[in-house]
Amino acid sequence: MTATLYGIGVGPGDPELLTLKAARILAATPVIAWPAPLEGDGMARVIAAAHISPGRVEIPIRMGFTLDRAGTEAAYDCAAHDIAAHLAEGRDVAVLCEGDPFFFGSFIYLFARLSSRFPVEVVPGVSSIMAAGAALRAPLCAWDDGVAIIPSTRSEAEIEAQVSAADAIVFMKVGRNLPKIRRVLERAGLWDKARVIERIGLADQRILAPDTVAELPYFSIILVHRRGHAWL
Amino acid sequence: MTATLYGIGVGPGDPELLTLKAARILAATPVIAWPAPLEGDGMARVIAAAHISPGRVEIPIRMGFTLDRAGTEAAYDCAAHDIAAHLAEGRDVAVLCEGDPFFFGSFIYLFARLSSRFPVEVVPGVSSIMAAGAALRAPLCAWDDGVAIIPSTRSEAEIEAQVSAADAIVFMKVGRNLPKIRRVLERAGLWDKARVIERIGLADQRILAPDTVAELPYFSIILVHRRGHAWL
Repeated sequence: MTATLYGIGVGPGDPELLTLKAARILAATPVIAWPAPLEGDGMARVIAAAHISPGRVEIPIRMGFTLDRAGTEAAYDCAAHDIAAHLAEGRDVAVLCEGDPFFFGSFIYLFARLSSRFPVEVVPGVSSIMAAGAALRAPLCAWDDGVAIIPSTRSEAEIEAQVSAADAIVFMKVGRNLPKIRRVLERAGLWDKARVIERIGLADQRILAPDTVAELPYFSIILVHRRGHAWL
Repeated sequence: MTATLYGIGVGPGDPELLTLKAARILAATPVIAWPAPLEGDGMARVIAAAHISPGRVEIPIRMGFTLDRAGTEAAYDCAAHDIAAHLAEGRDVAVLCEGDPFFFGSFIYLFARLSSRFPVEVVPGVSSIMAAGAALRAPLCAWDDGVAIIPSTRSEAEIEAQVSAADAIVFMKVGRNLPKIRRVLERAGLWDKARVIERIGLADQRILAPDTVAELPYFSIILVHRRGHAWL
């Protein structure tokens, strides 16, 4: 009666960037869980919609944007409880994850709660940073580039240390942290090399020139390459 | 008569980790190019084999492991010349890339040679680092982790600077550079946290405990997480 918990990367937004493996498993899995806002479908559910036939059990994992740490933990506890009940009765459960499940994915919090009790399989997915490179027509890194991927919430000193040690730099979740990032990049003489994409993976994603950027939404990515395009 | 050059990420090795988009484009593209050793098929060609029907024009881009910089440049020049001839006559060309085309992908060298003359579309793919996390059952990064991705050929001082500024660290292409990496991680007190996978993406990929590792092939990845699994 032991069923499997699948962490399924559904990619960065374009439904065609699901893998063949994700599509196959979703077609066969009776229970589907997905992170979501307080109302409506989550982005991962929208991306995978074509592969979820009617009649599946669906477990939305609902979290408001204003949730604190304790609230987040409680939401994952509840979801893990519901998922465990299905697994214990022998039904496989697939958890949908934007991008890749183990690369800044919320699946990690369910994996932490369930992986000691049930078989888990992770199906890797295309990450938003790969989608950003493709959309910007900008190679992320080549040859022996050292790469830094930096959540923009980190302190200015921490960001500066990562930037100074790397050749190719990716800022994720930029949003309100734009002024801090801009200060670090201006001091390093790199701001004019920044490539900015907002709403990455969404239908209205947009590429911006650094000089025109005043503010950015949360789902924005900035790519910078210290060596320019030394490989070109 | 203007045709499109596609850079197609075919993922880290498992043919099921191709995206739906890669499969659709490969099914419709009359000319397929792929990087390869001096004899036989390249790994990208093997991964995508099910989607390449007989009768396509195929352009193997052959490079020996001992090729120097000038030889490599010449090989890409020749491949770009052949690809351009097909594009100029109106035939779309798909270049197969292991992993993601713009993340340490050899497609970058063809993009550099052809993107000013022809329309280019990059189809992102699942990278080997995402496959390593899934195979190791180890989340790569979560929450506000700073991530360093380090080609192991870099100098010991450069590696040390990247390691010291990051929480989650990924070493690529380890091979002969293992002793250098081990020294850096031992000084940082991180060697016992290393997770090692050799022949990533190949049929005989294998997970090794750090204490048992004496030498590693080129296609090996080491993951380290400074904060352990603080999110767990």
